[in-house]
Amino acid sequence: MKLLYPNTLKLDIESMSGFPTVTLHQYDAKAPTIPAELLDAEVLVTWANSAANLSFAAKNMPRLAWIQSLAAGPNDVLAAGFDTSKVRAITTGSGLHDRTVAEHTLGLLLNAARRFYEMRDFQLRGEWPGHLGGPQPDREQGTFRTLRDAKVLIWGFGNIAKCLTPYLTALGAEVKGVARHAGVRGGVEVYAEEKLPELLPRTDALVMILPGDPSTRHALNKERLAMLPRHAWVVNVGRGTSVDEDALFEALEQGRIGGAALDVFETEPLPAESKLWKAPNLVLSPHAAGGRPQGAEQLIVENLRKFLAGQELRNKL
Amino acid sequence: MKLLYPNTLKLDIESMSGFPTVTLHQYDAKAPTIPAELLDAEVLVTWANSAANLSFAAKNMPRLAWIQSLAAGPNDVLAAGFDTSKVRAITTGSGLHDRTVAEHTLGLLLNAARRFYEMRDFQLRGEWPGHLGGPQPDREQGTFRTLRDAKVLIWGFGNIAKCLTPYLTALGAEVKGVARHAGVRGGVEVYAEEKLPELLPRTDALVMILPGDPSTRHALNKERLAMLPRHAWVVNVGRGTSVDEDALFEALEQGRIGGAALDVFETEPLPAESKLWKAPNLVLSPHAAGGRPQGAEQLIVENLRKFLAGQELRNKL
Repeated sequence: MKLLYPNTLKLDIESMSGFPTVTLHQYDAKAPTIPAELLDAEVLVTWANSAANLSFAAKNMPRLAWIQSLAAGPNDVLAAGFDTSKVRAITTGSGLHDRTVAEHTLGLLLNAARRFYEMRDFQLRGEWPGHLGGPQPDREQGTFRTLRDAKVLIWGFGNIAKCLTPYLTALGAEVKGVARHAGVRGGVEVYAEEKLPELLPRTDALVMILPGDPSTRHALNKERLAMLPRHAWVVNVGRGTSVDEDALFEALEQGRIGGAALDVFETEPLPAESKLWKAPNLVLSPHAAGGRPQGAEQLIVENLRKFLAGQELRNKL
Repeated sequence: MKLLYPNTLKLDIESMSGFPTVTLHQYDAKAPTIPAELLDAEVLVTWANSAANLSFAAKNMPRLAWIQSLAAGPNDVLAAGFDTSKVRAITTGSGLHDRTVAEHTLGLLLNAARRFYEMRDFQLRGEWPGHLGGPQPDREQGTFRTLRDAKVLIWGFGNIAKCLTPYLTALGAEVKGVARHAGVRGGVEVYAEEKLPELLPRTDALVMILPGDPSTRHALNKERLAMLPRHAWVVNVGRGTSVDEDALFEALEQGRIGGAALDVFETEPLPAESKLWKAPNLVLSPHAAGGRPQGAEQLIVENLRKFLAGQELRNKL
């Protein structure tokens, strides 16, 4: 049986070897076609494939039974036209992006709290941002200048949130979560969305890690933005559709929230006409939090073994 | 006995109360004088005092026996002209700035690795920094894009370094230290300076936390800058005199190091004529890492008890 793996990232082939009935073949995931001798493959691993490549695969791989995307959300694969009555499993790269996204999120929170973006603005003008240095108030009420004692609310409490939380608590933050189902996860109190009106007013930083599906569209809307304190920051590293960008722009313009650090937008790249380009206290990150799957080999190997054994695969869509 | 405490920060008086022979009095640390009724005080706590205020205190407080600065390095007190034959102890605020400086340092490292400063430059020009987002290489040889598996060398391995290290190792960094005396501190291998030629070439991020005295002047000089790999970042949160700014500018201009994030400079504010304003990959922070002593009350109380008991004070200069 053939397994095809993409050339768009480094994969350690040795750590995927050892299955005697499986041969591993690299393919060019950016090419508009896949070589004829590989088209009888049963397994396709995808990462950053061109749309043409996936579309070609969807039409020309009759024996394809399992697609392993390395993306957390494989919208590209779903849009390619695979015959899901024949491809019995599509599995995602959920888990492969936890540490990268958590680290980037931590960086965005510190950028916001320590005002590095504002320092940069001054630096580019040749001005010393002295108001941000020297003796400063410590953890003043109504400010977000440090993660120590900061109330951080993570909305969308999955694996990335569980990875991020210890970084935050090590720095002294108090972390709570919001998810579809309440409970205690990894030592964190996670609440259902109905509690947002109680939680948002006591939040210094709202971290959003929601998937991009119809149920989460504009989850952060005008009404919920109004519940946040004036100093609170919004950090979105999930999907851009979770935030109503017009409502966010207004909140920033009117100084009704402290700021927003966004790694994701409703449309990417952010269109030139978007008002967010000129919003005050808006930190723009170009969908950079992830983009580097880590531990792909272990996931592929685990799912390959399960596939061969006829067992349920991990991260099945 | 009177103890004077400054109005330049919030101090919880209750947590300094309980010594029956001591009365606590607030004074205006920015005023050029101290009220007559307070001039017989034996203890003076200082923080962000004006030079005139310290100078006045030095001339007008005959019973002053102990000065407790809340700064890590109380150069202001030392320059004020106190009669050190009568003031038997000057103690510093070492330890009160560990968490703030460590957090800010972590933020600077992530700013550098994740290129937030470069994203900001693009954002201000209305350009999407797409090259920094989407699918990216993971931990490529010769890059510093994440703390995971990054080799971080902390030069000046005191309490701030010990506070910072767990934040770095939690994110997956490998931490080593350099100090005057080699050894293992807080689980970290700390080497003497003679090992720098071996350590610097294998360093992805050099964090400098050296005090500003003659022995550390230009510790990071042209010769040592040349030992760093092309991708390595320098982060200085100690004192500006530790770095030869001309040599650093050349290294940045010529692309011989990845960048430098500096919270301290030989002269602050950075003079308009400094070449560093225009250096590529230079992140400027205006001596903002600390500036917020935390836990001052506990230190004051500990030293007050020791002072009254005739014992050796903590953080004695």
